[in-house]
Amino acid sequence: MSSDGIIKKYELLKKNFKNNENDSKITEYIFDIYNNCIEFLNGVSIKDLKSLSANKSYFTFEGASKFSRAVNKDLFCTNPTIVNSFFDCMGANSFSQMSSSDITKACYTIAISFCCSIDLLKSNDQKTPGTFFEYFIGHLYSKRFSLKPRTQLDVLNLDMQSTLPTDFVFDLGTGKPKYHVPVKTSTRERVIQVWGHQRVLDGVYGTGRFLGLLTCLSETKLDHKKLEVVEICLPEQWRLYQLFIAQLKRIYYLDIPRKYEELNNVFPKINIKPFGDFFSEADVLDVF
Amino acid sequence: MSSDGIIKKYELLKKNFKNNENDSKITEYIFDIYNNCIEFLNGVSIKDLKSLSANKSYFTFEGASKFSRAVNKDLFCTNPTIVNSFFDCMGANSFSQMSSSDITKACYTIAISFCCSIDLLKSNDQKTPGTFFEYFIGHLYSKRFSLKPRTQLDVLNLDMQSTLPTDFVFDLGTGKPKYHVPVKTSTRERVIQVWGHQRVLDGVYGTGRFLGLLTCLSETKLDHKKLEVVEICLPEQWRLYQLFIAQLKRIYYLDIPRKYEELNNVFPKINIKPFGDFFSEADVLDVF
Repeated sequence: MSSDGIIKKYELLKKNFKNNENDSKITEYIFDIYNNCIEFLNGVSIKDLKSLSANKSYFTFEGASKFSRAVNKDLFCTNPTIVNSFFDCMGANSFSQMSSSDITKACYTIAISFCCSIDLLKSNDQKTPGTFFEYFIGHLYSKRFSLKPRTQLDVLNLDMQSTLPTDFVFDLGTGKPKYHVPVKTSTRERVIQVWGHQRVLDGVYGTGRFLGLLTCLSETKLDHKKLEVVEICLPEQWRLYQLFIAQLKRIYYLDIPRKYEELNNVFPKINIKPFGDFFSEADVLDVF
Repeated sequence: MSSDGIIKKYELLKKNFKNNENDSKITEYIFDIYNNCIEFLNGVSIKDLKSLSANKSYFTFEGASKFSRAVNKDLFCTNPTIVNSFFDCMGANSFSQMSSSDITKACYTIAISFCCSIDLLKSNDQKTPGTFFEYFIGHLYSKRFSLKPRTQLDVLNLDMQSTLPTDFVFDLGTGKPKYHVPVKTSTRERVIQVWGHQRVLDGVYGTGRFLGLLTCLSETKLDHKKLEVVEICLPEQWRLYQLFIAQLKRIYYLDIPRKYEELNNVFPKINIKPFGDFFSEADVLDVF
């Protein structure tokens, strides 16, 4: 049964992720999970959704008595070629031969296949998709930086001594950047936490020591009765957070919401990019 | 049926709260809800819990197949005298004849009675207790300040024009303090949002314009198998937030966690007090 397989493989990933974040066996678990999800979703019917976001089309996987979250038609690869090429790149840890756009599509397909499978297999389970997404994205950063992340930092500050729990932190070493990488399937009103954490890092270690790279899946919300998809965005809040709390270096999305994409075009700009761009700019993020 | 009554009266409170925050009919709804809850809980048995917090004793209300959240024995009034006196004070909008300790007990009893009733009457419903607590505490601030709160502020800042959604904001007028009042039944890791919001207010309007008064019920966590209560506290995180994000003026609790209470005694101190203290110090919060 592929549906049993998904959960079992996910449990294996969960059990083995820590301390093996850039190991090839993590790639293999994700590859297995992806194949199980696709096999499961191939047996499920698809229904078009009404999209309230201009120039974006969405569908849903229809289970026995419920719908999965919305899936972006342009980003979801029905043909496995691009996704398989991406797994080859992960295996070789070399992404330069793939375009940003193809990387984003492959990552989107892998992430959303798992999320939609869990939407149909479990009830109201947001935690499992969130954890898978965190591990998947954490693995990719860990591969690209060839480095294991940390999830807590020591604070030694005059008479204070404590530890600061963080999202993934990748420390490239003395005189090189340190990256603060929060990972969320969607942000909603909780996103202020990310700027808050960045502010603490700036305060404790000095502004500019940690570059924040928030990485998200999408901001879609599906109305299960009307079968309408909207993107929930708070661009004016984000501008206030970026102005008054701290500066994030990049916000990467697999499915960039239109209203956030527009923040690239107003001064002072917030850099919001497709996640695929990370793979080519990873070595020069401290320069630009 | 008192259990039907609780939900019905709560729906009435929810429907009528906005724009009537300091109206006496809100007091009446809360009084009715409280009486319905006590009637309901009188028919339910009580079980002692193992407390892992020194000098604190807790019990739980035992429903058909589940337990309510933990209740602090020293704060819960089994005799209605104190609570009824407090409702009289609310009616008269004069709290000076009650001690801080009795006000805290009365508020704790009203809040925890509702939360425990919902714990037993509904499944995994955190939202209803959270909303009731927000309205109950919002009503008390609104009474004490004789002022309706706002929940959004205009931002006019050079070429930016937007609105900032906030927790309760009480604006005492020109040349007087403005209070930022976030209300949470418990905080856990989400609390960084509160310091983040305070930071935005400090940045947009100037540091010191808004005094932050975070108001919470408790931080207990009940292990439903072992029937053990622990207080989940992150005092070292709080110190970092207070040092590096923003300054909160007060953190009020109905059931102060021991580890947070200790933050009153280390420099730089965070003022963490029983909520009853607010009623006597409300007029001088801008002085001390």
